[in-house]
Amino acid sequence: MEVILLSVNKTKDDSIEKLISNYSKKINHYVKFSTFEISKIKYTKKNKKEELKNKEGLEIKKFLKNEDICVLLDEKGKNVDSIQFSKLLNNYYCTNKKRLIFVVGGAYGFSDEIYSIFSDKISLSKMTFNHQIIKVFFCEQLYRANTILSNEKYHNN
Amino acid sequence: MEVILLSVNKTKDDSIEKLISNYSKKINHYVKFSTFEISKIKYTKKNKKEELKNKEGLEIKKFLKNEDICVLLDEKGKNVDSIQFSKLLNNYYCTNKKRLIFVVGGAYGFSDEIYSIFSDKISLSKMTFNHQIIKVFFCEQLYRANTILSNEKYHNN
Repeated sequence: MEVILLSVNKTKDDSIEKLISNYSKKINHYVKFSTFEISKIKYTKKNKKEELKNKEGLEIKKFLKNEDICVLLDEKGKNVDSIQFSKLLNNYYCTNKKRLIFVVGGAYGFSDEIYSIFSDKISLSKMTFNHQIIKVFFCEQLYRANTILSNEKYHNN
Repeated sequence: MEVILLSVNKTKDDSIEKLISNYSKKINHYVKFSTFEISKIKYTKKNKKEELKNKEGLEIKKFLKNEDICVLLDEKGKNVDSIQFSKLLNNYYCTNKKRLIFVVGGAYGFSDEIYSIFSDKISLSKMTFNHQIIKVFFCEQLYRANTILSNEKYHNN
Protein backbone atom coordinates (compact mmCIF):
# COMPACT_ATOMS: atom_id res chain seq x y z
CA MET A 1 0.00 0.00 0.00
CA GLU A 2 1.04 3.57 -0.67
CA VAL A 3 0.28 6.33 1.84
CA ILE A 4 -0.06 9.92 0.65
CA LEU A 5 -0.53 13.11 2.60
CA LEU A 6 -2.49 15.41 0.31
CA SER A 7 -2.83 19.10 1.10
CA VAL A 8 -4.39 22.01 -0.72
CA ASN A 9 -1.70 24.47 0.29
CA LYS A 10 1.94 24.59 -0.58
CA THR A 11 4.35 24.53 2.35
CA LYS A 12 6.14 27.86 2.28
CA ASP A 13 8.22 27.55 5.42
CA ASP A 14 11.64 25.90 5.00
CA SER A 15 11.69 24.56 8.57
CA ILE A 16 8.29 22.90 8.16
CA GLU A 17 9.39 21.47 4.83
CA LYS A 18 12.56 20.05 6.35
CA LEU A 19 10.74 18.40 9.25
CA ILE A 20 8.22 16.84 6.85
CA SER A 21 11.04 15.62 4.63
CA ASN A 22 12.92 14.08 7.60
CA TYR A 23 9.83 12.24 8.81
CA SER A 24 9.01 11.13 5.26
CA LYS A 25 12.39 9.41 5.01
CA LYS A 26 11.78 7.64 8.32
CA ILE A 27 8.23 6.58 7.35
CA ASN A 28 9.51 5.13 4.09
CA HIS A 29 11.35 2.46 6.05
CA TYR A 30 7.93 1.04 6.89
CA VAL A 31 5.59 1.98 4.05
CA LYS A 32 5.77 3.85 0.76
CA PHE A 33 4.94 7.43 1.72
CA SER A 34 4.86 10.75 -0.08
CA THR A 35 3.28 14.16 0.24
CA PHE A 36 1.42 15.95 -2.52
CA GLU A 37 0.48 19.60 -2.54
CA ILE A 38 -2.22 21.01 -4.78
CA SER A 39 -0.86 24.40 -5.68
CA LYS A 40 -3.16 25.33 -8.54
CA ILE A 41 -5.48 27.49 -6.51
CA LYS A 42 -4.77 31.18 -6.53
CA TYR A 43 -5.46 32.87 -3.24
CA THR A 44 -6.58 36.45 -3.56
CA LYS A 45 -8.25 38.74 -1.09
CA LYS A 46 -11.39 38.54 -3.22
CA ASN A 47 -11.77 34.80 -2.64
CA LYS A 48 -14.82 34.09 -0.59
CA LYS A 49 -14.65 31.39 2.05
CA GLU A 50 -17.20 29.01 0.45
CA GLU A 51 -15.88 29.61 -3.06
CA LEU A 52 -12.36 28.79 -1.91
CA LYS A 53 -13.45 25.60 -0.16
CA ASN A 54 -15.35 24.51 -3.30
CA LYS A 55 -12.32 25.15 -5.52
CA GLU A 56 -10.12 23.19 -3.13
CA GLY A 57 -12.73 20.42 -3.04
CA LEU A 58 -12.65 20.09 -6.83
CA GLU A 59 -8.88 19.73 -6.80
CA ILE A 60 -9.04 17.12 -4.05
CA LYS A 61 -11.57 15.11 -6.08
CA LYS A 62 -9.40 15.36 -9.20
CA PHE A 63 -6.46 13.84 -7.34
CA LEU A 64 -8.40 10.89 -5.99
CA LYS A 65 -9.08 7.62 -7.76
CA ASN A 66 -12.22 5.59 -7.18
CA GLU A 67 -10.45 2.80 -5.38
CA ASP A 68 -8.52 5.06 -2.96
CA ILE A 69 -9.15 5.09 0.75
CA CYS A 70 -9.52 8.71 1.74
CA VAL A 71 -9.32 10.01 5.31
CA LEU A 72 -9.88 13.67 6.14
CA LEU A 73 -7.73 15.21 8.85
CA ASP A 74 -10.40 17.33 10.40
CA GLU A 75 -11.38 18.92 13.70
CA LYS A 76 -14.81 17.30 13.38
CA GLY A 77 -13.14 13.89 13.14
CA LYS A 78 -12.72 11.20 15.73
CA ASN A 79 -10.21 12.07 18.46
CA VAL A 80 -7.90 9.10 18.68
CA ASP A 81 -4.77 8.46 20.69
CA SER A 82 -1.55 7.19 19.12
CA ILE A 83 -2.31 3.53 19.84
CA GLN A 84 -5.82 3.81 18.40
CA PHE A 85 -4.42 5.57 15.36
CA SER A 86 -1.92 2.77 14.79
CA LYS A 87 -4.80 0.26 14.94
CA LEU A 88 -6.84 2.26 12.45
CA LEU A 89 -3.79 2.43 10.21
CA ASN A 90 -3.33 -1.30 10.48
CA ASN A 91 -6.96 -1.86 9.45
CA TYR A 92 -6.34 0.24 6.35
CA TYR A 93 -3.11 -1.65 5.62
CA CYS A 94 -5.09 -4.90 5.78
CA THR A 95 -7.47 -3.88 3.00
CA ASN A 96 -6.52 -4.70 -0.56
CA LYS A 97 -6.57 -1.06 -1.60
CA LYS A 98 -3.55 0.45 -3.29
CA ARG A 99 -3.60 3.98 -1.95
CA LEU A 100 -4.42 5.47 1.43
CA ILE A 101 -4.80 9.23 1.19
CA PHE A 102 -4.89 11.51 4.23
CA VAL A 103 -6.15 14.97 3.33
CA VAL A 104 -5.33 18.28 5.03
CA GLY A 105 -7.83 21.00 4.14
CA GLY A 106 -7.18 24.70 3.62
CA ALA A 107 -7.43 27.53 6.12
CA TYR A 108 -11.23 27.22 6.22
CA GLY A 109 -11.52 23.44 6.27
CA PHE A 110 -13.40 21.33 3.71
CA SER A 111 -16.41 22.05 1.48
CA ASP A 112 -19.80 20.50 2.28
CA GLU A 113 -19.39 18.28 -0.78
CA ILE A 114 -16.12 16.83 0.46
CA TYR A 115 -17.71 16.13 3.85
CA SER A 116 -20.63 14.38 2.13
CA ILE A 117 -18.39 12.14 0.02
CA PHE A 118 -15.81 11.14 2.60
CA SER A 119 -16.98 9.88 5.94
CA ASP A 120 -13.61 8.82 7.40
CA LYS A 121 -12.38 11.69 9.52
CA ILE A 122 -9.62 11.80 12.11
CA SER A 123 -8.82 14.67 14.44
CA LEU A 124 -5.24 14.98 15.69
CA SER A 125 -6.33 17.28 18.51
CA LYS A 126 -9.34 19.19 19.79
CA MET A 127 -7.22 22.25 19.18
CA THR A 128 -7.22 24.12 15.89
CA PHE A 129 -3.87 24.09 14.18
CA ASN A 130 -2.27 26.03 11.43
CA HIS A 131 -2.80 24.02 8.24
CA GLN A 132 0.94 23.98 7.52
CA ILE A 133 2.08 22.91 10.98
CA ILE A 134 -0.53 20.14 11.04
CA LYS A 135 1.42 18.33 8.31
CA VAL A 136 4.42 17.98 10.63
CA PHE A 137 2.19 16.67 13.42
CA PHE A 138 0.60 14.17 11.09
CA CYS A 139 3.95 12.90 9.81
CA GLU A 140 5.20 12.43 13.37
CA GLN A 141 2.06 10.43 14.20
CA LEU A 142 2.31 8.35 11.05
CA TYR A 143 5.93 7.56 11.86
CA ARG A 144 5.00 6.78 15.49
CA ALA A 145 2.11 4.55 14.40
CA ASN A 146 4.39 2.53 12.16
CA THR A 147 6.93 2.05 14.95
CA ILE A 148 4.09 0.92 17.24
CA LEU A 149 2.92 -1.61 14.64
CA SER A 150 6.51 -2.87 14.36
CA ASN A 151 6.87 -3.14 18.15
CA GLU A 152 9.70 -0.67 18.21
CA LYS A 153 10.92 1.48 21.06
CA TYR A 154 10.10 4.98 19.78
CA HIS A 155 6.69 5.09 21.47
CA ASN A 156 7.59 5.14 25.16
CA ASN A 157 4.20 5.15 26.74
CA MET B 1 2.92 38.66 33.42
CA GLU B 2 5.76 36.66 31.95
CA VAL B 3 5.09 33.33 30.22
CA ILE B 4 7.82 30.70 30.08
CA LEU B 5 7.91 27.35 28.34
CA LEU B 6 10.17 25.18 30.46
CA SER B 7 11.46 21.88 29.12
CA VAL B 8 13.85 19.29 30.46
CA ASN B 9 15.41 18.53 27.09
CA LYS B 10 17.45 20.70 24.82
CA THR B 11 16.09 21.18 21.29
CA LYS B 12 18.64 19.60 19.00
CA ASP B 13 16.85 20.04 15.69
CA ASP B 14 17.53 23.34 13.88
CA SER B 15 14.14 23.34 12.13
CA ILE B 16 12.27 22.88 15.42
CA GLU B 17 14.39 25.58 17.00
CA LYS B 18 13.64 27.98 14.15
CA LEU B 19 9.88 27.38 14.33
CA ILE B 20 9.92 27.96 18.10
CA SER B 21 11.96 31.11 17.65
CA ASN B 22 9.56 32.44 14.99
CA TYR B 23 6.52 31.82 17.17
CA SER B 24 8.29 33.31 20.19
CA LYS B 25 8.76 36.58 18.31
CA LYS B 26 5.08 36.64 17.37
CA ILE B 27 3.96 35.81 20.93
CA ASN B 28 6.10 38.63 22.31
CA HIS B 29 3.83 41.12 20.59
CA TYR B 30 1.17 40.11 23.10
CA VAL B 31 2.97 38.95 26.23
CA LYS B 32 6.55 38.58 27.47
CA PHE B 33 7.48 35.05 26.45
CA SER B 34 10.60 32.95 26.54
CA THR B 35 11.65 29.32 26.52
CA PHE B 36 14.03 27.74 28.98
CA GLU B 37 15.68 24.38 28.57
CA ILE B 38 17.15 22.47 31.47
CA SER B 39 20.16 20.83 29.95
CA LYS B 40 22.02 19.72 33.05
CA ILE B 41 20.81 16.15 32.99
CA LYS B 42 23.08 13.66 31.33
CA TYR B 43 21.27 10.97 29.41
CA THR B 44 23.05 7.67 29.33
CA LYS B 45 21.82 4.23 28.46
CA LYS B 46 22.22 3.32 32.12
CA ASN B 47 19.61 5.86 33.24
CA LYS B 48 16.57 4.14 34.60
CA LYS B 49 13.16 5.53 33.75
CA GLU B 50 12.14 6.47 37.31
CA GLU B 51 15.59 7.77 38.19
CA LEU B 52 15.56 10.00 35.12
CA LYS B 53 12.10 11.37 35.90
CA ASN B 54 13.20 12.14 39.49
CA LYS B 55 16.31 13.96 38.30
CA GLU B 56 14.25 15.96 35.84
CA GLY B 57 11.72 16.68 38.61
CA LEU B 58 14.44 18.13 40.85
CA GLU B 59 15.59 20.46 38.08
CA ILE B 60 12.01 21.59 37.41
CA LYS B 61 11.54 22.39 41.10
CA LYS B 62 14.84 24.32 41.20
CA PHE B 63 13.66 26.54 38.37
CA LEU B 64 10.32 27.39 39.95
CA LYS B 65 9.63 30.09 42.48
CA ASN B 66 6.95 29.80 45.13
CA GLU B 67 4.69 32.42 43.59
CA ASP B 68 4.81 30.98 40.05
CA ILE B 69 1.79 29.49 38.35
CA CYS B 70 2.89 26.15 36.96
CA VAL B 71 0.97 24.17 34.33
CA LEU B 72 2.13 20.75 33.17
CA LEU B 73 1.71 19.90 29.51
CA ASP B 74 0.73 16.32 29.98
CA GLU B 75 -1.26 13.56 28.32
CA LYS B 76 -3.15 13.04 31.57
CA GLY B 77 -4.24 16.68 31.51
CA LYS B 78 -7.50 18.24 30.46
CA ASN B 79 -8.14 18.11 26.72
CA VAL B 80 -9.07 21.63 25.72
CA ASP B 81 -9.80 23.22 22.38
CA SER B 82 -8.15 26.46 21.25
CA ILE B 83 -10.97 28.69 22.50
CA GLN B 84 -11.01 26.96 25.91
CA PHE B 85 -7.23 27.27 26.09
CA SER B 86 -7.44 31.01 25.39
CA LYS B 87 -9.98 31.35 28.23
CA LEU B 88 -7.74 29.42 30.63
CA LEU B 89 -4.84 31.63 29.61
CA ASN B 90 -6.92 34.72 30.22
CA ASN B 91 -7.77 33.47 33.71
CA TYR B 92 -4.07 33.10 34.42
CA TYR B 93 -3.37 36.57 32.97
CA CYS B 94 -5.98 37.98 35.37
CA THR B 95 -4.19 36.74 38.47
CA ASN B 96 -1.60 38.97 40.08
CA LYS B 97 1.14 36.41 39.63
CA LYS B 98 4.35 37.38 37.89
CA ARG B 99 5.26 34.19 36.07
CA LEU B 100 3.20 31.56 34.27
CA ILE B 101 5.30 28.48 33.55
CA PHE B 102 4.22 25.73 31.17
CA VAL B 103 6.34 22.62 31.59
CA VAL B 104 7.15 19.96 28.98
CA GLY B 105 8.39 16.74 30.55
CA GLY B 106 11.02 14.39 29.24
CA ALA B 107 10.58 11.28 27.11
CA TYR B 108 8.97 9.41 30.02
CA GLY B 109 6.77 12.19 31.38
CA PHE B 110 6.86 13.58 34.92
CA SER B 111 7.85 12.03 38.26
CA ASP B 112 5.18 11.18 40.83
CA GLU B 113 6.43 14.03 42.98
CA ILE B 114 5.89 16.59 40.23
CA TYR B 115 2.37 15.25 39.67
CA SER B 116 1.67 15.52 43.40
CA ILE B 117 2.84 19.15 43.63
CA PHE B 118 1.28 20.57 40.48
CA SER B 119 -2.35 19.91 39.82
CA ASP B 120 -2.82 22.13 36.74
CA LYS B 121 -2.41 19.91 33.70
CA ILE B 122 -3.30 20.55 30.07
CA SER B 123 -3.21 18.03 27.25
CA LEU B 124 -2.68 19.39 23.76
CA SER B 125 -3.87 16.16 22.17
CA LYS B 126 -4.90 12.63 23.05
CA MET B 127 -2.01 11.57 20.87
CA THR B 128 1.50 11.17 22.20
CA PHE B 129 3.89 13.59 20.58
CA ASN B 130 7.63 13.72 20.48
CA HIS B 131 8.73 15.94 23.38
CA GLN B 132 10.59 18.25 20.98
CA ILE B 133 7.74 18.59 18.48
CA ILE B 134 5.34 19.33 21.33
CA LYS B 135 7.16 22.62 21.95
CA VAL B 136 6.27 23.84 18.45
CA PHE B 137 2.74 22.57 19.01
CA PHE B 138 2.48 24.58 22.25
CA CYS B 139 3.98 27.78 20.82
CA GLU B 140 1.50 27.76 17.95
CA GLN B 141 -1.36 27.38 20.43
CA LEU B 142 -0.03 30.09 22.72
CA TYR B 143 0.25 32.43 19.74
CA ARG B 144 -3.25 31.46 18.56
CA ALA B 145 -4.72 31.93 22.05
CA ASN B 146 -3.29 35.44 22.25
CA THR B 147 -4.73 36.35 18.84
CA ILE B 148 -8.11 34.99 20.00
CA LEU B 149 -7.95 37.11 23.18
CA SER B 150 -7.12 40.14 21.01
CA ASN B 151 -10.01 39.42 18.61
CA GLU B 152 -7.66 39.03 15.69
CA LYS B 153 -8.19 37.18 12.43
CA TYR B 154 -5.62 34.37 12.74
CA HIS B 155 -8.07 31.91 14.28
CA ASN B 156 -10.45 31.24 11.41
CA ASN B 157 -12.90 28.90 13.01
